[in-house]
Amino acid sequence: MVTPQRSGQDRVPPHPDVRAVGLQQVLEALVDPVRRQIVRTLYAADQDLNCGAFVLPVSKSTATHHFHVLREAGLIRQHYIGTSRMNGLRREEFEESFPGLLRAVVGNE
Amino acid sequence: MVTPQRSGQDRVPPHPDVRAVGLQQVLEALVDPVRRQIVRTLYAADQDLNCGAFVLPVSKSTATHHFHVLREAGLIRQHYIGTSRMNGLRREEFEESFPGLLRAVVGNE
Repeated sequence: MVTPQRSGQDRVPPHPDVRAVGLQQVLEALVDPVRRQIVRTLYAADQDLNCGAFVLPVSKSTATHHFHVLREAGLIRQHYIGTSRMNGLRREEFEESFPGLLRAVVGNE
Repeated sequence: MVTPQRSGQDRVPPHPDVRAVGLQQVLEALVDPVRRQIVRTLYAADQDLNCGAFVLPVSKSTATHHFHVLREAGLIRQHYIGTSRMNGLRREEFEESFPGLLRAVVGNE
């Protein structure tokens, strides 16, 4: 029996349709300063970044939780390149559902 | 000895300079759905409203607390007309300090 090798695609975690996410969930995600720091970093980078690229004042497991909350709120998309988990801002989709919100939050601190 | 009569002006509660309020405090104020309801109502009314004009799903004392949090976050200004406590959105001042944020929050639910 051959064990199939897990490809990167297999390990893509579930992502919500941003249109199904409510403002309440988005604000709960953005009210945390560490999560806003992640969003600001991605916004400024304008490219996908692996988790190690973020300098965050929390433990690795707490950081993982924060990325999870942002993914659930439709703010970021995660995928793997080899063993690296990459994170990208869902900027256009988010802008369509919540016009102006991302720029207002990112631009105001 | 004459006890001075309290005028409406005496009962104006303290208001912060919006420029001294941080985004963290603003988001903590806006993450609550009842407080967003108050803000949306004032935004739509485009005039000062007394506390009784809001139909809120909370007790009067809880509502008072929510108005207090909004005032502390620089979002509303409160003053008295007779015994009525009036509430007004500090729209222009807020827009200067947090461009786009109010519209993004009010316009997205």
